[in-house]
Parts: sequence; structure tokens; C-alpha cells
Amino acid sequence: MEDWRVGLVTFFSVLAGLLAIGVANEVYLRLSAAKIKVNGKHCYVTGGSQGLGKCVALDLARRGANVTIVARREEVLKEAVREIKACAIDPKQQQIEYVVADITNSSAAVEAIETAVTKQKQPIEYLFNVAGISNPGVFLEQSPELIRKTMDLNYFGTVYTTHEVAKRMVTENIKGGHIIMVSSVLGFFGLVGYGAYCPTKFAVRGLAEALRVELQAHGINVHCYFPGTIFTPGYDLENLTKPEVTKEIEGADEGMTPEKCSAGLFKGLERGEFGITTDPIGMLLRCGTRGVMPNNNFMLDTIISGLAWIIFAPWRVMVDRTVIKYASKQHSK
Amino acid sequence: MEDWRVGLVTFFSVLAGLLAIGVANEVYLRLSAAKIKVNGKHCYVTGGSQGLGKCVALDLARRGANVTIVARREEVLKEAVREIKACAIDPKQQQIEYVVADITNSSAAVEAIETAVTKQKQPIEYLFNVAGISNPGVFLEQSPELIRKTMDLNYFGTVYTTHEVAKRMVTENIKGGHIIMVSSVLGFFGLVGYGAYCPTKFAVRGLAEALRVELQAHGINVHCYFPGTIFTPGYDLENLTKPEVTKEIEGADEGMTPEKCSAGLFKGLERGEFGITTDPIGMLLRCGTRGVMPNNNFMLDTIISGLAWIIFAPWRVMVDRTVIKYASKQHSK
Repeated sequence: MEDWRVGLVTFFSVLAGLLAIGVANEVYLRLSAAKIKVNGKHCYVTGGSQGLGKCVALDLARRGANVTIVARREEVLKEAVREIKACAIDPKQQQIEYVVADITNSSAAVEAIETAVTKQKQPIEYLFNVAGISNPGVFLEQSPELIRKTMDLNYFGTVYTTHEVAKRMVTENIKGGHIIMVSSVLGFFGLVGYGAYCPTKFAVRGLAEALRVELQAHGINVHCYFPGTIFTPGYDLENLTKPEVTKEIEGADEGMTPEKCSAGLFKGLERGEFGITTDPIGMLLRCGTRGVMPNNNFMLDTIISGLAWIIFAPWRVMVDRTVIKYASKQHSK
Repeated sequence: MEDWRVGLVTFFSVLAGLLAIGVANEVYLRLSAAKIKVNGKHCYVTGGSQGLGKCVALDLARRGANVTIVARREEVLKEAVREIKACAIDPKQQQIEYVVADITNSSAAVEAIETAVTKQKQPIEYLFNVAGISNPGVFLEQSPELIRKTMDLNYFGTVYTTHEVAKRMVTENIKGGHIIMVSSVLGFFGLVGYGAYCPTKFAVRGLAEALRVELQAHGINVHCYFPGTIFTPGYDLENLTKPEVTKEIEGADEGMTPEKCSAGLFKGLERGEFGITTDPIGMLLRCGTRGVMPNNNFMLDTIISGLAWIIFAPWRVMVDRTVIKYASKQHSK
């Protein structure tokens, strides 16, 4: 054979092999994945009064679910319930409720679940842990109180609620329950300006990974969503405290509306994915820092992982240089 | 050219290319890395009364450092100070001190640093955040209090101490300070039995990654150590609560002594590594979940990353099957 033919045959053999593995994996995933089916089920959404949480609740109502939203401010919750009710496909059957609670307190989190179950007269089968805050800022200027507060809402709110709901799923023998956690692309890597925030989203990812392994023994499915920037009321607040250097690194903001994020989250859930991302950078980060996490698509994830390996090294160097550039600007002031 | 020659030439060209990149990267790393030089410096070690913390303190004394160890129990601290003093290479010059403090409380953590600096009459240039606990167990049987306690010591102890020490490094204009955090291989992936623990070690990793980027602006070097099993007093306690399924998955325990871990940690610090691992599984996990973290060795890390991609998929399937097997055993009891 001639040289170019050898190369071509090798190239296409490898490609065909990867394709075969990829297709087999896809078929397996599609067949084995636990499909979500929220119609008529009790879905519990923390942080459901605004932003992504409210959009998730709206989408659940559109799919025929009974929805309970949980947050701290009653008037905002009441308004959200009105909106969610308006989206119900079967307003007579679907029950939409709210519970006022500060879930960073473990007994309040447990009590809120008890109240929700009593109101709906139905155990929780879908838990969406959406409540969370982002407080970007210069780490050394942030107070220990703020650092603790961020962990309280982003991690402890999720872990307390998950702990209680999962216990109830086991005792009430609910098979096929789903627990969804919301991390962030900043749960994949650390960045300047997010010293208080990144650890909380890493913690949520660690919790999701550990519980995915552990709770499958009880037929409970765990998912973790890693959104990028979401244009919500919280996002406007974020920008007030975000350091300039962080803004420069993040560049022109390619964020998404909470509506689009929610739609993407449901797509991922319908495909039975564990780690769900809804934008190209999220996908790159997920594949680059997948580790022991399940693949979403063997072939695609493998290719993207290789890309991530190549792309992240120079990107990190660029980030490091920007940080040092800003520091010397500060000094020369 | 004949077929086999084409293959051979291609193979060796790729190999030579990778080798060149690897060597260049190695040289760059060696030249640019901030070398640790603890001789005569004030080194502050949390959790320094036993286990890995004490071994780190002993190694620091052997390198001529002034060491302050921090922990909660005074009698254990006193005994450790005696041992550390015995390792000093210049007992007349080197000062070894201890501070009794519960660093999970933010003001106690700050006060302990003030006390240490007063005692040593020298600012802290090396911070080793070693204090930590592991509480393996069945997640649903663990109490919310235990979940919080684990985060308190493993994350908040580290973040409070780091926050204060880094602020002082900046105001006292110490260039070339080093902050070392201790995560775990379980900061790379989640596992059954570690629902309370993994999130805390993920959080430490997130903190280290974010602060590596941010604090370089002040000439502060951040490192993160990811040990596997360490045979310490804490380890014996761990095994009392560790679920059977976790023990089966972990298999014959290939742990390391704290002395070996400390030696490996110092080797990594001397090479200027950000993410430090001291055993093959740790290395595999580091490369597999590196993401945006700096490479330690471009060529080697790339090869291991490929291996990790291949190895972790079937390993995960094995783990998932073991978990389900144990669950059905439980049910049939």
C-alpha cells in the first residue's frame, strides 16, 4: 500500500472504532437512564420564588407536576405561586404550594419538608435544590461572616434538604426518586474573585458525586447541574461587588436567561445525565474535570476532554497574567 | 517507504515532539517555581499535635524552621513540642511553640495567629493547614450536626486561618509566602460512605484553586495536597464507622504512614507544584480531574490523563455494582 493509504485506513479505522463505542454507549445510556416523569408527582423546589428556581417550577407546572416552592420571603413566594398556577396544564388537578423557610437552619429545613408534604398530601419524589447566592469580591476584603453565609445557603441548604428528603424516600419506599443539585461552572475550577463562592459549589459537586454512588442503592437518582452565568436578580447584585480583574477575565458576558437554563436542565434530566451543562464552556469544563463522573456521551466527551486539555493550559496562563497585571496597576496607583 | 517504517517514523516523531514539550515545560517549571526555604522562617501548622500535622512540624524542624503548632488539647501539644524540639538542627536558634485553639471559630482562629506571632516575634511565612477529620458512614444515618462539624474543621478551620494569615502577609509585605492546604484524593471524586466528608475536601480544593489565582497578585504561593489513606490516630477511628461496602471497594488498604506523606509533600513543594499527590492513585485522579489546574509535568500528566480516562469508566461501573449488590444483601436480610 502507498503511504497516504496507510494513514487514511488507520485514521478511519480509529474513527470507526470510536464511533462504534460511542453509539453503543449512547444506546446503553438511553435505555438504562432513569427517565424523569413529573406528571402528577410532588416536586419540591428550593429557591423557587425567583430566578432559576422559579423557572424550574414554571416548567414543572407545564409538565403537570404538583409543585411546592420554598424561600424566605412570603410576598415573593405568593406572587410566584400565582405565576406557576397560570402555567399548570391541568389547574384543577395540579396543586401549587409554597413554604416560608430559611433552609440554612437544619430544623427549619426539615420542618419545611414536613409542611410541604402535609399541604400536598403526597410524598416528595423530585427535589430541586436551587437556592443559592453568589458573592464575588476580593477574598481578603470579604468577612469571615460572608464566607460562612455563602456556604450556609449554597451547601448546607442543599445538604439538609437532601438528607431529609432522601431519608423519606427510603422509608416510604419510593423507587425512582430524583434529587437535583445545582453547582456552577465554578464548581469545576477556581477563579479570582470567587474565593468565598467556589468552595461552596465544589462542595455541592462533591456531595452530588458521593450521593450518586451511595443513593443508587435505594433507587434514588442524583443529578448535578453546572450553569454558567444566569441573568437573574442575583446576577445584578453580583456585579456590584465583582472585582475589575474578574470582569476583564470573564470578558463580554455570554450568560443565559433562567428560562433557557431551566429548559437545558430538563433536557439533561430527560437524557438521564448525571452532570448537566447547558453551554459550550460548561461542557468543556465538565469533560475536562470529569474524573470518575459518568460520561454523558462517550465519544463526544472524549474528544472534548482532549480539547479541554489543550485549551485550559494557555487560558490559565492568560488568567494568571491578567491577575498580576491588575496587581501591579494597583501598586502603581 | 515501507509501511512499518511510516508507522515507526510517525510514532517516534510524536514521541520526540511530546518529549520536547515535556522537557521544555519541566525546565520552565523548575526555573519559575517558587522554591520553599523554611530555614529560619516562622511556619504555622494547624493540627500539628498529631498525625500528618506533627510529621510536617518535625520535618520543618529538621529544616531549621521556627515552628508553631496549633490544636485543641494542651497536653498533646506539649508532648508534640518536645518531640519537635528534639528534631531541631539548631536548638539554640530555632523556636518551637504551641497555641491551644479551636480554629473552627473564626475569632479563635485569628487570636491563635496573633498569639503565635507574639510568641515567635516573627510574622508567619509558611502556613500548613493540616487540621481535619474524616467521618465515614452511611449518609442517611449521619446527623446534620456531624455534617456541619466535618465542614467546620475541614473547611472553615482552613479558610479562617488562611484569610487572616494572607491578610497579614499582604500588610507586612511578605513576598514569597506559602500557604499549603490539605484536601484528599476524595477531593477529586465522590464515593459511597463519604457523603459528609467529600464535600469538605472538594471545598478545600475549590478554595485552593481560587486563591492560587487570586493571591499570586501578592506574591503568595498556594499549594494543595491530596493524600490518600494515612495511617494516623484518626484513621483507626474512621474504620469504626466505615460502611462495609466502602471497605470492600477500597480493598486491601494501601495507605501510607504520615512520615512518608510529609516527605512526599515537601518533595512536591520543592518542585513548586500546585497540586501535590504522593501515591499512584492520587496521581491518576489529579491528572484525570485536573481541569484548569496547572500541570505538574506536561508530558507525564498528559499520558496519565489518558490512562485515567480509560481506567475510571470501568472502575465506576464496578463501584456502582458493588453498591447495588450490598443494598440487595441488606434487603434480603
